Amino acid sequence: MGEPLRVLIIGGVACGPKTASRLKRLLPDSEVTMIERGKLVSYGACGLPYYVEGMFPRIEELVETPAGIGRTPAFFQKVKGFRSLVRTEALRIDRERKTVRVMTLDSGKEEDLPYDRLVLATGSSPVRPPLPGVDLGNVWYMRHPDDAASLVERITAGNLRRAVLIGAGYIGIEMAEALRERGLHVTMVEIFDQVMPQTLDREVALLAAKHLREKGVELALGERVVALEGNGNVGLVRTDKRTLPTDLVLIGVGVRPNDTLAREAGLVCSPKGGIVINSFCQTSDPDIYAGGDCVVNHHVAPITRKAFFIPLGSTSNKHGRTIADHIAGLASPFAGISATAVCKAFDLTLGRTGFSEREARELDPDIETIIWAGADKPHYFPQSRPLIIKMIASRRSRKLLGVQIVGRGDVSKRLDVAATALFFGATVDQIGNIDLGYAPPYSSPIDAIATAAHLMVNKLDGIARGISPLEAKRRIDAGNDVILLDARTPKECQSMRLPYENVVHIPLGALRERASELPKEKEILTFCKASMRGYEAQRILNGAGYDRVSFIEGGLLAWPFELTTG
Amino acid sequence: MGEPLRVLIIGGVACGPKTASRLKRLLPDSEVTMIERGKLVSYGACGLPYYVEGMFPRIEELVETPAGIGRTPAFFQKVKGFRSLVRTEALRIDRERKTVRVMTLDSGKEEDLPYDRLVLATGSSPVRPPLPGVDLGNVWYMRHPDDAASLVERITAGNLRRAVLIGAGYIGIEMAEALRERGLHVTMVEIFDQVMPQTLDREVALLAAKHLREKGVELALGERVVALEGNGNVGLVRTDKRTLPTDLVLIGVGVRPNDTLAREAGLVCSPKGGIVINSFCQTSDPDIYAGGDCVVNHHVAPITRKAFFIPLGSTSNKHGRTIADHIAGLASPFAGISATAVCKAFDLTLGRTGFSEREARELDPDIETIIWAGADKPHYFPQSRPLIIKMIASRRSRKLLGVQIVGRGDVSKRLDVAATALFFGATVDQIGNIDLGYAPPYSSPIDAIATAAHLMVNKLDGIARGISPLEAKRRIDAGNDVILLDARTPKECQSMRLPYENVVHIPLGALRERASELPKEKEILTFCKASMRGYEAQRILNGAGYDRVSFIEGGLLAWPFELTTG
Repeated sequence: MGEPLRVLIIGGVACGPKTASRLKRLLPDSEVTMIERGKLVSYGACGLPYYVEGMFPRIEELVETPAGIGRTPAFFQKVKGFRSLVRTEALRIDRERKTVRVMTLDSGKEEDLPYDRLVLATGSSPVRPPLPGVDLGNVWYMRHPDDAASLVERITAGNLRRAVLIGAGYIGIEMAEALRERGLHVTMVEIFDQVMPQTLDREVALLAAKHLREKGVELALGERVVALEGNGNVGLVRTDKRTLPTDLVLIGVGVRPNDTLAREAGLVCSPKGGIVINSFCQTSDPDIYAGGDCVVNHHVAPITRKAFFIPLGSTSNKHGRTIADHIAGLASPFAGISATAVCKAFDLTLGRTGFSEREARELDPDIETIIWAGADKPHYFPQSRPLIIKMIASRRSRKLLGVQIVGRGDVSKRLDVAATALFFGATVDQIGNIDLGYAPPYSSPIDAIATAAHLMVNKLDGIARGISPLEAKRRIDAGNDVILLDARTPKECQSMRLPYENVVHIPLGALRERASELPKEKEILTFCKASMRGYEAQRILNGAGYDRVSFIEGGLLAWPFELTTG
Repeated sequence: MGEPLRVLIIGGVACGPKTASRLKRLLPDSEVTMIERGKLVSYGACGLPYYVEGMFPRIEELVETPAGIGRTPAFFQKVKGFRSLVRTEALRIDRERKTVRVMTLDSGKEEDLPYDRLVLATGSSPVRPPLPGVDLGNVWYMRHPDDAASLVERITAGNLRRAVLIGAGYIGIEMAEALRERGLHVTMVEIFDQVMPQTLDREVALLAAKHLREKGVELALGERVVALEGNGNVGLVRTDKRTLPTDLVLIGVGVRPNDTLAREAGLVCSPKGGIVINSFCQTSDPDIYAGGDCVVNHHVAPITRKAFFIPLGSTSNKHGRTIADHIAGLASPFAGISATAVCKAFDLTLGRTGFSEREARELDPDIETIIWAGADKPHYFPQSRPLIIKMIASRRSRKLLGVQIVGRGDVSKRLDVAATALFFGATVDQIGNIDLGYAPPYSSPIDAIATAAHLMVNKLDGIARGISPLEAKRRIDAGNDVILLDARTPKECQSMRLPYENVVHIPLGALRERASELPKEKEILTFCKASMRGYEAQRILNGAGYDRVSFIEGGLLAWPFELTTG
């Protein structure tokens, strides 16, 4: 028997411990060491906003196993069989000698750790915007349990009433919910003119913004923060448009991959940041692996292999498995990502997989989109809740390119079905055919995601002529001489309406008889609550010889602008 | 312009109205007539148990659109543009003349309706067992809104206290919940020795049965009902083992396809029942289509094209779309079914897709199975709930063959992901790689379905040596000299234990040090709460030179037999 294989892992949060644990299961005789700069290893960073919100009482739960055992270095040694050194920083890699220079932070002592295989799981760091005042007190990032613990401590002390969140991405939205639940007044400033600009298309983001406002979050979109001001602690956020007094600031404007160590060692990195890896998570040095937030990912075939920096805990864990397997001689390539993401925003869930419309148009000029609105369960079921699904597909291949879903209903199930379909290169025709589970507590006979796919099929086939709410608004605002045909019942019209004068109301059931009331030379936009009836009205009018008819996709449920109520 | 295409549809519940509605959207000039024997059309039969349970107040909701409009013949005429004739029965098909002889039930008047295309959507009928007393009063089936309405009327009148359900399939379980919620004492008699014998494997069914008993449902499994007795109304159910006094009986022992009309017309039907169709839902006469509960379905490729009779509302609706499309000249073949099914049973959800273990073994002698138990969300999240997943895969192709899931957690999401993966012919390796949505309110960083797939991969690769709880019980009961190694913490062991004397307790964290306490010549079965630690213990012992070690898959969470508590 030869010497045991020495594996050194830099980084102890997600990919690192996953790699180490699996490696020791696969190669019990290997000598695995994991070093971590911080004092905690293997914590659930994604849970921090929910700790702040008060959903669980002890922050230690984020570093415990389900059985309540702390994931400490002693735990990893005894249970998993590998050594972990905390408060230990990697300074540089010597690829010739296959050593890493490390420093124990508490003592300043340096030493060289040898490796046969090196794993870089160095993670990412929050972008710290170069703003005046960014180093004031009561300015938080939300990356480490210490961040959440200190924030909760300050909130509990009772002297924080107002918060300004910079950045309306995931962390901003999750923290908006957490801080509202804690009773704070919350303003969210975002330099782009929509929430979740990296994730959601405009009309979907508008629906999310509507809900955030309903929940008391003030949105300052399209505003640039120019300075934080205060005396010791932050007291004021200055944007290019206004001044916001505040007791705390939370910054969530993205993260950057920690790739300096790799760059300095001459490993190939992306010009935009992130270590370049192959499908076995090997870097340009085959004895050095990298995974987690510090690498660049590729989209799953069959859409594109384009590189993306999308750091997620789920991906980090998959990387860890791939790395351990490859070191142990098992081939389990990492397939790539689909940019799937999901986020809770108060009563809504926001999700997306694949490409946004903008991204898709860059890859394929010939795409089609649909917006579908409807319920996640049969309407008679008391837990029935609305969903709005945007779907993007290639016109030529009819393959699904992307899905965005927002709603109070069960978004996450439909999102995961879409992510799975996307993974396997599904056409929208196939999605309408999948044998999904049906019972009234869980779905309608044809599930929402299948119905949305059917709408896409109908649109690709030229049967459904839908336009997006944004396009409808554009045509209305352009002063085009359009008729808005509301196909709902009189009772429905009483409670909520489009705020325009050119609305004509003919319930769908009367349309076959009364179609002739409509002029043939004008453009007609039909709609209803969710636009099934809008679509049917379009088909009835087509059948009656009306050609310039479209329906407004998603109807009033997906209408992201003002509605008249009452 | 020629004559309009005449389409006649027999059956007005699910496939029929779907076909008719879509056809009129695709071919506005076609002349579509739908006939229905009953007085109601297009009702949501799957909602009946929930009406009985009291989840919604008006049974009319089952025949209304989401906007609250009744789906009456007048509605279909005005809104969808087709004619429907209720209380009208089809007597025979004349394929030569292309007419159907129909009778108006109220008047007895007969006439011949001509067709260019005929659609058989004749549905299925509940099996009425040939038992003495089956025609007594207070014996229900649950197929039509009238069944549910009359049952609720009788319950509300207050004179029903005890119910016997015959058959422990979907309808039996849904009705057990409904009647328990209504305060009745419920006994369920099933001729097979497990609940859901057509759907779930034994160990999964045992878990479901445990829950039903906890909810106060008495189970009489492996018992044959021999007679119903009573004076006018049923008062007694006699089985081959006992006598059950009761105030009502509900029979749910399956359904049979209504294929008599098709058989008499000489259309090809399966010897076991059900009209044979191609992927465009055409029968052996290309001008006659069939869909819904009256046909035989095929499993989706790539598993097998084997024929199955599995009637479901979701399939019926897809058939309707396929039929309308083909008549209108669009090719959208029906891909087949995966035998996906889901059912709520009190706090549990039961789901399955693909093949059961028994079915899979008939197709492929070389299969592997796993049982995985764990939480659907991170343990620190208050809404975290357990799931138990059974997965069946081919050893050679590593393709997924079937999945069964049971638990208080979000079963339906994982089931639909599995159904989607199965549809696309996924290997279990691929399932572990899908980029599913991750945020703590919805899942763990590696979702339950992916973790289950990883366990299968580990087992196929010979790394994880798990055995099912049934196999563990068999080895223990056989008096084999096995050691049961409990790897949990002392605290966990206090509250719940396996009721055997040969249990040795060594917490996982102490196992590396204390392994030598275990004899090498004995077989060791390791376990913990969910068996992640059971698996780790197996690997640690393997590393320490112990070869005869397996872990009990699913641990105590999936243990379907008695446990010692307190």
